[in-house]
Amino acid sequence: MNATETAAPYGFGTTINATFDEAIERTKAALKAEGFGVLTTIDVKATMKEKIDVEFEPYVILGACNPHLAYRALQAEHELGLLLPCNVIVHQHGDSCRVSVIDPAQMLGFVQGNPALDEVASEAEVKLRRVVDSLSAV
Amino acid sequence: MNATETAAPYGFGTTINATFDEAIERTKAALKAEGFGVLTTIDVKATMKEKIDVEFEPYVILGACNPHLAYRALQAEHELGLLLPCNVIVHQHGDSCRVSVIDPAQMLGFVQGNPALDEVASEAEVKLRRVVDSLSAV
Repeated sequence: MNATETAAPYGFGTTINATFDEAIERTKAALKAEGFGVLTTIDVKATMKEKIDVEFEPYVILGACNPHLAYRALQAEHELGLLLPCNVIVHQHGDSCRVSVIDPAQMLGFVQGNPALDEVASEAEVKLRRVVDSLSAV
Repeated sequence: MNATETAAPYGFGTTINATFDEAIERTKAALKAEGFGVLTTIDVKATMKEKIDVEFEPYVILGACNPHLAYRALQAEHELGLLLPCNVIVHQHGDSCRVSVIDPAQMLGFVQGNPALDEVASEAEVKLRRVVDSLSAV
C-alpha cells in the first residue's frame, strides 16, 4: 500500500510514524495549512468505553471544514449539511498511525445534476490530497 | 412535499412547526428514543459568521450516533469512521423548521461487498425513519 492508498474506496490517506497524539496534531496542522479547521472531534475509543463498555484502539474522527468551500457548497445545495464536514480519521496501528480523509468527489457523487458542487468537490479534493501528501512527505 | 420527503436524494426528513431551539430539542429527544446520542453539534450560522463573516440562516448539523450500531459497523469495516456519525440537520424556514436525516443505506452504498454493513445500515435506517415519523406525528 503506498502513501495515498487506503483500504476504503471512499477515502485516501497515509501511514505515518508518529505516536497517536503526534499524528492528530500533525494532521490538524496539515489541514490548517489548506484552510480546513477542525470543528468536531469524536474520540471513538472513549465513546465506546463510556457508552457500551467495549475496548477500542485509539481512533478519532475529526470533522474538518474549509468555511469558504462549505459556504459555496451550501449555497449550491441547501441540504448539503447532511454531507458536511469532511471526515478525517486518525487511528493507531502498532507503532504507526493511519490518517485517512474522505474523498469529497465520492461523497458528492451522491449529488447529481449540480455542476456548482462538482467544482467545490474538486477544489476540496485537491486541497485534501495536499494534506495527505504533506503528511507523507515528513 | 409530504412529511418524509426531502429535496436531497441522500436524506429524508420532515417540516415541523416549532421554533429553531424547540426543533433542535425535539429532534434530540426523538433521536434519544431510538438510541442515538448527539456527539457533535455544528452551529453553521455562528461558524460562518465567525470564520468568514457571512450571514446564514439558523442551521445546525448534529452528529448522531447509536453506539451499538456504530461498533458493529466499525468491526465490519475499520475505516468506516470516514462515514460516521449519521448527520441530522435542523434549519429554519420562515415560521417552521426542516429536519433532515442522512439516509444510512445511501451513505453505505459506498461500501461494496460487505453484507454485514448492509444489515447495520438497514437497522439504522429503520430507526432513523421512526425518528422522522415521530417528529411528523406531533
